[in-house]
Formats: sequence, structure tokens, C-alpha cells
Amino acid sequence: MLDAEFIWQVRVYYEDTDAAGVVYYANYLKFMERARTEWLRALGVEQPALLDEHGVVFVVRHVTVDYLKPARFNDSLAVSTRIKRLSQARIRFAQHIQRDCTLVSSEIEVVCVNAVTFKPVKIPDHILQLLE
Amino acid sequence: MLDAEFIWQVRVYYEDTDAAGVVYYANYLKFMERARTEWLRALGVEQPALLDEHGVVFVVRHVTVDYLKPARFNDSLAVSTRIKRLSQARIRFAQHIQRDCTLVSSEIEVVCVNAVTFKPVKIPDHILQLLE
Amino acid sequence: MLDAEFIWQVRVYYEDTDAAGVVYYANYLKFMERARTEWLRALGVEQPALLDEHGVVFVVRHVTVDYLKPARFNDSLAVSTRIKRLSQARIRFAQHIQRDCTLVSSEIEVVCVNAVTFKPVKIPDHILQLLE
Amino acid sequence: MLDAEFIWQVRVYYEDTDAAGVVYYANYLKFMERARTEWLRALGVEQPALLDEHGVVFVVRHVTVDYLKPARFNDSLAVSTRIKRLSQARIRFAQHIQRDCTLVSSEIEVVCVNAVTFKPVKIPDHILQLLE
Repeated sequence: MLDAEFIWQVRVYYEDTDAAGVVYYANYLKFMERARTEWLRALGVEQPALLDEHGVVFVVRHVTVDYLKPARFNDSLAVSTRIKRLSQARIRFAQHIQRDCTLVSSEIEVVCVNAVTFKPVKIPDHILQLLE
Repeated sequence: MLDAEFIWQVRVYYEDTDAAGVVYYANYLKFMERARTEWLRALGVEQPALLDEHGVVFVVRHVTVDYLKPARFNDSLAVSTRIKRLSQARIRFAQHIQRDCTLVSSEIEVVCVNAVTFKPVKIPDHILQLLE
Repeated sequence: MLDAEFIWQVRVYYEDTDAAGVVYYANYLKFMERARTEWLRALGVEQPALLDEHGVVFVVRHVTVDYLKPARFNDSLAVSTRIKRLSQARIRFAQHIQRDCTLVSSEIEVVCVNAVTFKPVKIPDHILQLLE
Repeated sequence: MLDAEFIWQVRVYYEDTDAAGVVYYANYLKFMERARTEWLRALGVEQPALLDEHGVVFVVRHVTVDYLKPARFNDSLAVSTRIKRLSQARIRFAQHIQRDCTLVSSEIEVVCVNAVTFKPVKIPDHILQLLE
């Protein structure tokens, strides 16, 4: 599983761009999260079920992003998602956004937390098994 | 109270604009809501207290917007907020966004709902009294 | 063409929701625009070409939205788009967002403008012909 | 100048939050950019003038963010901005978001680019002098 790569296509709409004519820097993080959500869904995991059955949510703890080239309005982008490191409560992803070349390169760490206290808890077993 | 007008200043940042060089049409609705929030705060009403003490939130039920002229990056805008009609569960606002002239003109109706069921309920008495 | 209806599927991600647990009211307008963009694309019209070849963009002039029921995180929504009225420079759309029932109902009028002056201009002929 | 710290207050509105009840992780980057914009303005630099007179814009090249604790709806936050490293074309900022304690800690590097080619260029002299 750690070697598998998941690809999700994203289209750039006006909402994603800014007056400099390119995608606004924060909005790439939306694309990254859409891809992580669809990656989980492809594994058979729906996040509302995670919350209802286990009382947990995944929250982002750390982000490193390198912006190499700008994406523009109407671009069709490929977001790649791969697990880089996995522990009992945390998943570190390597995620890249590509068009003809790599535009954005990132590492994003999410942690499984209790949905009320936001304290870290173990990732539910059946999900850990899917990921390992 | 129905004649009073509340003015809130908003600055246009890159996040608000799009690749056409102007404020993205949905984002004016964010400015409108910031102004309604600050209008409530100026009346002494904090929305988390509304939720904690009364179990209610205000949700938008209807919006009419006329986009007359575009706002641009770095503009300083004035959002005016005035109650146009008030009933037991609903408030209809007239809100305008102005720079040198009126750029956007809107009517926005919010309804007081139970925070769990989203069913309309009476606006808490002490708030109705503030508004009347 | 005036009777044709175009359907575009949209998934609700965390970015679209707010602390009330539902889709933030301004964000439905993003879904509406994605659907109008894909409707144009389905007709063979790419907006960057409109700008490069004709120097025009479509901007929103008027919006009326009725929020009937809230959409929630992870919902899969269908956005329907239909031309309601067409003139030389303007298109009025009827757009609805549906899940099990209609959640949001809107009329949105866009106007074709010169990309520099933002003054209304005639919609390029080959596009008018596609729409009629 | 390198030791000076600039503080900008930001209020959390519904638009900034998500269905987990906290500020959406990408939106802190909007707060960071508002603070950098106001820091530049406090130095007497308006970005549209940068573009008109020098043909340059600042774009974000790198971001590192640690999310320590979540901000919530209606919070009033202080964003601190400090130059950490300065070169001919780049500024690396240390930016923190604080409430009662530090919620978010970041380093953000912007590069001065030609507004058309997006190629790095020297920061205009009068701005470099302001920063040094």
C-alpha cells in the first residue's frame, strides 16, 4: 500500500484563481484535500461513517508546499497522492499537482483525533489494516 | 431600528479576486455576511452565545444580488446593512457595497432555525426587542 | 436549445462547508459556475479562447437564490443548468441543485463584456448560434 | 527591520470554518496573506503600484505550516509577521497566528517576479531599502 499512488483529476475554475491570473496559493490545498478524500473513498472509507461509528476525524497537523510553476484558469490538473509514512495516529502524504510538468509538490501530515476533544487517537483498526 | 444603517469596511485581498481581475461574484456574499455578523456584534449579540444559550442559528433563506460595477484588488469597500423587514423568525436585510459609487446591491433574508433540525423557530425575545 | 438541460455532478468537500455543518451559502454559487463552465465546454466553447479570440468574458450581472434545504459534507449533488432567456448580450440561466430533492433554486444572469472595459458587447455570433 | 514584528488582527467568520467546527486548514493561509499585505501597506507599499510602476508581483514559492491548535468561529486572532531572511529577489517570513496561545506557526517565502513571465526579478530598490 505504501507504494501505491492515487491520481485524481481537478479542473481549475474562476473560483480558484486570483487577479494575478493564476491559482491562488491556498487553493492548491483544497485540491490536495479533495484528492485525499477521494483516495479514502477509493479504499472504501467514507468520512461521515468514521465520525458516526468511531467519533474521529482526520485533521491536518503539518504542511510543506513548494510552488514550482503556476496553474491557470481552465487547466486540467492531476493530483497524485501517496503515503510516505504511517504511524498509529498519523499519516504523512506526499502529494503532487501535475499538468505537463510538476507544478506543486507537497508533504501533508494528518492526525486522527477525537472529534470533540481534538486529541490524537489511534486510527481505527480496519483502516490501519487497509493502509498497511 | 428599522431605519438605522450599519457600515462595515472591507478590504479586497488577492483571495477575493479571480483571473478576470475583479472580485469573484460569490465572494461579495462573504463581505455581506461579515457585515451582518459585525452588525449583530454591535447590537451586543455574539452568535456562539445564541447557539449555546438558545440552540439557534441564523441561516440564509433567500438572496437577490445585482452586480453593478466590479470591485478590484486592494479596494477599500463600505458594506451598508439595514433591516428591510422583520417577522417572528425572519429578518430581511438590504445590503449594499460601495466604493466611489454603489458596486453591488442586495437583499438577503435570514431565518432563525433550530441548530439541530434546521426548522424555523422564533427569534429569541431579547434579540427581537433589540431589532424592533 | 432553450429547452435543453445540462446536469453536472458536484461532490461536497470540507472546503465547502461551515461550522453550522452545512454548505456555506456563498459556495453554492461556485457549484453553479462550475456547471455553467462545463455546459459551455460541452457546447465546444472554452472560455480562454473566448478571451484570446474575441476579447470578451462573461460576468454575472444578477443572482436570485432560494435556499430550500442544506447540503452537507460528502453529499453528491446534481446541478442542473438551463437557458431561461437569451438576448444579444445576456444569458439568463435557471439553475438548481438537487440531492434527493431540490436544495437550492436560482436564476443567474450573465452578460458578455469587453475584457478590458467591462462594457457589455454582443455575444460572438458562433456562440449565439449554438445557443439558439 | 529584520527584527521588527507586525501584528494584524483577524476575525473568524463562518466563511473560514468547516463542518469539523474549526477554521479550514487552507484558510489560515488567507489570514497570513492579509497580514503580509497590511505589513507592506504599513511600510507605504501598495501592491497595485508595484505592478503598474515596476511590472512585478510577489508570489509565494514555499510554505511550511504547523497546525498546533484549532481556531474556531468568532475567534479574534492576532497574526504576527516578521522577516526571517531577505535576498535580492526573495523574502522569507515567519508568521504566527495567536489567540490565548500560538495556534499556527509558519514560514512563507515569496519571490518577486515579472508579472507577465513569472520569472524572478530583483525587488525594486526603494522597497529593498525599506526592508533592510
